[in-house]
Amino acid sequence: MSEKVVIDDRVRFVETDMMGVVHHANYLRWFEMGRVEYLRRHGVLLLDLLDDGILFPIIDVACHYSASARFDDVVRIETEMVEFNRAKMVFSYKVIRRADGIVLASGTTQNVFTDRRGRIIRLPSKYYDRLVAKAAEK
Amino acid sequence: MSEKVVIDDRVRFVETDMMGVVHHANYLRWFEMGRVEYLRRHGVLLLDLLDDGILFPIIDVACHYSASARFDDVVRIETEMVEFNRAKMVFSYKVIRRADGIVLASGTTQNVFTDRRGRIIRLPSKYYDRLVAKAAEK
Amino acid sequence: MSEKVVIDDRVRFVETDMMGVVHHANYLRWFEMGRVEYLRRHGVLLLDLLDDGILFPIIDVACHYSASARFDDVVRIETEMVEFNRAKMVFSYKVIRRADGIVLASGTTQNVFTDRRGRIIRLPSKYYDRLVAKAAEK
Amino acid sequence: MSEKVVIDDRVRFVETDMMGVVHHANYLRWFEMGRVEYLRRHGVLLLDLLDDGILFPIIDVACHYSASARFDDVVRIETEMVEFNRAKMVFSYKVIRRADGIVLASGTTQNVFTDRRGRIIRLPSKYYDRLVAKAAEK
Repeated sequence: MSEKVVIDDRVRFVETDMMGVVHHANYLRWFEMGRVEYLRRHGVLLLDLLDDGILFPIIDVACHYSASARFDDVVRIETEMVEFNRAKMVFSYKVIRRADGIVLASGTTQNVFTDRRGRIIRLPSKYYDRLVAKAAEK
Repeated sequence: MSEKVVIDDRVRFVETDMMGVVHHANYLRWFEMGRVEYLRRHGVLLLDLLDDGILFPIIDVACHYSASARFDDVVRIETEMVEFNRAKMVFSYKVIRRADGIVLASGTTQNVFTDRRGRIIRLPSKYYDRLVAKAAEK
Repeated sequence: MSEKVVIDDRVRFVETDMMGVVHHANYLRWFEMGRVEYLRRHGVLLLDLLDDGILFPIIDVACHYSASARFDDVVRIETEMVEFNRAKMVFSYKVIRRADGIVLASGTTQNVFTDRRGRIIRLPSKYYDRLVAKAAEK
Repeated sequence: MSEKVVIDDRVRFVETDMMGVVHHANYLRWFEMGRVEYLRRHGVLLLDLLDDGILFPIIDVACHYSASARFDDVVRIETEMVEFNRAKMVFSYKVIRRADGIVLASGTTQNVFTDRRGRIIRLPSKYYDRLVAKAAEK
């Protein structure tokens, strides 16, 4: 479960604020992009979960910011799964400025699984097994 | 159908960009807030439409910007319905800076009605009649 | 420093995501609105800080989500300052659904002060003293 | 001036709304990404303009939506400059779903140039000439 999934993204103008840097809330979008991609590469598409009536609400987020991303920067988002069972997933993230390798932010998210009415459920085997199998392969 | 619905909102920091003003895409959010409020005051809640499986996708947007909203400005959004039948709604909007009455932007949106699968439908009578009746009252 | 500043806001359609609830990143915007209002009521306008070349980047954010805000909900944001000196501010927040008083989310932010080039500075007395005086009054 | 600049982007979860599709305001972000990339490939970096005290506010936006982008879709944004002089730029855009080539939306933006205080200016020769020269090359 220590495999790192890496994606790159370029800062959009709209993501800046009047301090001239990327607004801090936008890092959560990058975490999300990393998480989506991590799951895709491990055989799980969020659209399939949704089609099966499984929601995956975030229940905890934390982010520490050490330097600012700026407009037009290319950032690298590194995503790792640090805990995983049928009841929850915990991911950790690093956002790195490509130009100089500086870590701009690091954080974690935890999500649970619920049905469409918001009641906690356990992740069905078809998804759980796939994630475990893929992680084992790597 | 000429009644004007007015709401006020204060510019959030996150809505600014690195030019120091509100990013132009955010005016579409204000238009949406005005439209939602217009419909509410005329007896139509978007949540009821959604519960009935009726979607209301925007098919046209236009906005002309004449001055910039800035952080902490209080803006007034004026919304009018300019065309309405069972197939579509057209709204027009003005965004005005409260401090000096300057019109910052004006625009229009048009939306249609679809079912959950995206097929065009006609607005059911229970909603149509309510909107017409409310408009007549005013 | 225990005074609580309270603001209300109505969930915008654009703030929802395809799970049918408010996207988790948007709670950071509510925290920001609460923080801005807290400072305003204690005599500090962010625009004045910016005019004086003082930035106030967030360096830490944490949020725990216990229930979902939905479209059209009115939420109450309660903001308290829990730590404050010339080098940093720590705020804590609660987001509460007005209809039933349920706490949807709670969190904290920490920010430092920097000059326009991003170098750490100490908050000038004119702002520091105002915040301390206002807090003492209450 | 008829060269088309093409970029691809994948729909983020945060860009969806509770109708299950990309919120209409987000297409303006795609237009912006296309415009930024068009200018980059023609030798103009927005950061350079900003460093020279030149702002480029949007004064008109129009968008027609013909089908909905969904989460995880890869969209192609095609950007063309349709009018350009020292006083303004007009761009046109198409947003196309990669999977089937369907045009999801098309639109235009117009921007002017101002100084930092918002007064209309003419684009300095160093930028104007570069854009004209690059366009001639193609």
